[in-house]
Amino acid sequence: MISGTLLVFALLCGVEAGRVLVLPGEYSHWHNMRSIVDALVDKNHSVTVLVSSSSPTVQHTRTERFNFNVFKANVKKEEADAVWSDFIHLWMTDAASTYEKVSMIMQVMSNFMALAADTCKSMFHNEDLLHTLRESHYDVLLSDPMMPCADLMAETLEIPHVLSLRSSFAYNFEHFCGQIPTPPSYVPAVAVQGHLTDHMCFTERVENMLLYIMYTTIFQLNMRFTFDRLYTEIRGKPTTMCETMGKADIWLIRTYWDFEYPRPILPNFKFVGGLHCKPAKPLSKELEKFVQSSGDHGIVVFSLGSMINNLTIERSNIIASALGQIPQKVVWRYSGKTPESLAPNTKIFDWIPQNDLLGHPKTKAFITHGGTNGLYEAIYHGVPMVGLPLFADQPDNLMHMKTKGAAVVLDINTMKSKDLEEALKTVLNNPSYKESIMRLSRIHHDQPMKPLDQAVYWIEFVMRNKGAKHLRVQAHDLSWYQYHCLDVAAFLLAIVALITFLFIKTCSFFFRKCFRKTRPAGKAQKNKKE
Amino acid sequence: MISGTLLVFALLCGVEAGRVLVLPGEYSHWHNMRSIVDALVDKNHSVTVLVSSSSPTVQHTRTERFNFNVFKANVKKEEADAVWSDFIHLWMTDAASTYEKVSMIMQVMSNFMALAADTCKSMFHNEDLLHTLRESHYDVLLSDPMMPCADLMAETLEIPHVLSLRSSFAYNFEHFCGQIPTPPSYVPAVAVQGHLTDHMCFTERVENMLLYIMYTTIFQLNMRFTFDRLYTEIRGKPTTMCETMGKADIWLIRTYWDFEYPRPILPNFKFVGGLHCKPAKPLSKELEKFVQSSGDHGIVVFSLGSMINNLTIERSNIIASALGQIPQKVVWRYSGKTPESLAPNTKIFDWIPQNDLLGHPKTKAFITHGGTNGLYEAIYHGVPMVGLPLFADQPDNLMHMKTKGAAVVLDINTMKSKDLEEALKTVLNNPSYKESIMRLSRIHHDQPMKPLDQAVYWIEFVMRNKGAKHLRVQAHDLSWYQYHCLDVAAFLLAIVALITFLFIKTCSFFFRKCFRKTRPAGKAQKNKKE
Repeated sequence: MISGTLLVFALLCGVEAGRVLVLPGEYSHWHNMRSIVDALVDKNHSVTVLVSSSSPTVQHTRTERFNFNVFKANVKKEEADAVWSDFIHLWMTDAASTYEKVSMIMQVMSNFMALAADTCKSMFHNEDLLHTLRESHYDVLLSDPMMPCADLMAETLEIPHVLSLRSSFAYNFEHFCGQIPTPPSYVPAVAVQGHLTDHMCFTERVENMLLYIMYTTIFQLNMRFTFDRLYTEIRGKPTTMCETMGKADIWLIRTYWDFEYPRPILPNFKFVGGLHCKPAKPLSKELEKFVQSSGDHGIVVFSLGSMINNLTIERSNIIASALGQIPQKVVWRYSGKTPESLAPNTKIFDWIPQNDLLGHPKTKAFITHGGTNGLYEAIYHGVPMVGLPLFADQPDNLMHMKTKGAAVVLDINTMKSKDLEEALKTVLNNPSYKESIMRLSRIHHDQPMKPLDQAVYWIEFVMRNKGAKHLRVQAHDLSWYQYHCLDVAAFLLAIVALITFLFIKTCSFFFRKCFRKTRPAGKAQKNKKE
Repeated sequence: MISGTLLVFALLCGVEAGRVLVLPGEYSHWHNMRSIVDALVDKNHSVTVLVSSSSPTVQHTRTERFNFNVFKANVKKEEADAVWSDFIHLWMTDAASTYEKVSMIMQVMSNFMALAADTCKSMFHNEDLLHTLRESHYDVLLSDPMMPCADLMAETLEIPHVLSLRSSFAYNFEHFCGQIPTPPSYVPAVAVQGHLTDHMCFTERVENMLLYIMYTTIFQLNMRFTFDRLYTEIRGKPTTMCETMGKADIWLIRTYWDFEYPRPILPNFKFVGGLHCKPAKPLSKELEKFVQSSGDHGIVVFSLGSMINNLTIERSNIIASALGQIPQKVVWRYSGKTPESLAPNTKIFDWIPQNDLLGHPKTKAFITHGGTNGLYEAIYHGVPMVGLPLFADQPDNLMHMKTKGAAVVLDINTMKSKDLEEALKTVLNNPSYKESIMRLSRIHHDQPMKPLDQAVYWIEFVMRNKGAKHLRVQAHDLSWYQYHCLDVAAFLLAIVALITFLFIKTCSFFFRKCFRKTRPAGKAQKNKKE
């Protein structure tokens, strides 16, 4: 007999079509979130992607299976593109002095902040947009923290909020806004120079603590003097970004324990790294022919991602001549000027089907900038890597792979042709790299639920249950000194101090009493002797 | 095209029959673990239950689908039964003075320790047993911490270890042995008197901190002076229980967020509360007839679990007369003397199919002692509760249900008939109790994977992968002061102090230099004036 209660659940938990509002990030962040959007559409949910007219990469076409709602920003698309371009240029410049670099960083940060402020204000000062969004009665808002004020939108529309993020340095967002504990003794702030893992000696722990102090200071200053002011201005009352972001029902973290060092988590943090990965599809005839021509040596896949189109002529020649030194064929995604030193084994393509190539049985290695998406495709298909990190989380990503024995990492700005050649030969010929990446790949595939299914599950969960408050810790309601029990400790210490004081006073009182009784007698004796 | 890598995974991840060694707990712990054992047998794994000849409840029959390996203990079964019987008696005695109670507790604890020591030594001093176990080449050891030295057995046999536990007061086992963070500011040590939840005011946080201090002190003293000595004696070198237990690959926690307040967790902690629950089966004809005779009023199910067979005549009469005051029919599991005040609406049974009754559409309420198993059956089927907690984790379990609005809790030793009657009427007539338990039931059923499937998944995972080291935090390798970064803080403070000292010294040096230059002039002026 199936009880009535269970029948009710069967009905309640059935997948009803919901209304999802998506505020995506840019570049690879959007690429990743598209996988979730597609999966939601496959399950008959109605998805609307809210995007600024200045968005550099979220293309609003009419042929998609989901809707776009494009709101007018004051900043023009070209201006926004320029901000992103400056950002990339910043990391690729090795000629500037430290002073110049710092002033460039300050300028880029300031431009980013101006862009973010414009996006936020364009959304929240647009009454028609807000009215349309309110009337649409969305069931959930899915966002990437790269899109500013998305959390404020969830609060304004009074709908549950699901966040998707890779993670921040020293886990600042997760720690300060999500309340996740991050003990600096075994949770590295960021994997620097390949020597900070979860297993640290004393000096490494000192270094890690200093990194925590630095990242936390930058984060807190940045929040206080930029985003908190912006949020307060928009809301018209004191509001902090962390407080608003902390109201998120579910945090979808775009990593997993194949990549991360194990660390404390919270029940509303779900790890969905590699959700965009899928089995390889057949290659085009031309590409398959080139791949097959590699014979037993196989191929090497090389891509620096979608943000880098150009390298300096010097850099591209250094790379091309190194690629010419290996017996493998090389598929290089590059849209810059063809380097003169390009060898016959290397073929340059404007675009490559990266996932299909990485999943090809002939693929022996992957030269990558270390973006999380590409890195997870390498883990998924079990391809060892040579890392040429460029910016943002890429050095950290690749250092994780290096410390886990699945990658060799080089500095693209300073490496010589010989360095890249040696790195490639090491990864191709030393079996430990293949073994390590296969171990990570096994961990990745051996999960109770596929990452994409899990992401969709929890988005549907908050739609069904109007949130997931039963997974959200009460730490959000505590101040920092309450969280660390400093008020309680002070109170208990005060009581201990009071008891000690009273005990000493009482003792000394009785001691004095005894002393007074005996002293005159003593004195009398002394006087007698004298 | 499916890549070769994926094909390898398909083969690797296929369910191969493994060899599982089980060291179970007693009473309800064994009942719970049997569900896992049955599920493992269903998946063609070969399961051996290792049990002491003095075990009070783990029955070694020849008709099971799994094997028993019974080792000879020095303590007789009757003696072990007596220890457990004293344990129950301890909680049910309300006549004893505080002094008598404390001395009884000490006696029972001492008897338990002697029993544990005998079980451990009987296992580890039995060379034939150890030889047989070694030769059996088990793939994993599944244990309950109620069975002493199980972790030591996993270490001795050099096989992965999966622990199954409900959780300890102040999460001592999980915190000290498993390295889970437990901030006392929002993680209640234990729900006492219904006022400690995850949302605490200042005085409650003080109380919680004191409870943490108390439970931690008892735990540490108990470990140091009993189990650590026993482990050291058996291993022949300094060994602590926590260190050995901390090597477990997976911790299966027998709760979930339907029951627990959200709190930090670790990647190798899997929450499988209610894994033994299943849809209700049809009742026997006799029972179904009695249930149907209740008409629209429905029935109340009443059980104090498998450990309590007798109540005092006074208590049983108080209960029976309260049951007679409600219009529902009552199914009471009780094997003591039939109370004189038993009303016609109440029927006493030696044994009841509790899960099938709780899942019956006519069941309106559940009177329970609050064991985790029964409580999860009530959550599974959505039945509100009246709690009569007896011992161990039962008061805490029921306080969780009370604070979540799904139960009324009474003290069985002091309650009057009227109290029970009123509690029953409240739970039956106030719809908020049904709504609350239905909310918890929805949370329970709306999980990505069923609890039993998850438990089996992770046991099979450690068999497939020879452990789950990628989920185990490095905190295990740190001392307490390293974990809390006290050494790093001391070092950094020393540097700050040194810099401050040098700065002050330098300043005072220059100050003195200036002062010396000007003072004579000042003096000279002063002298002139004089």
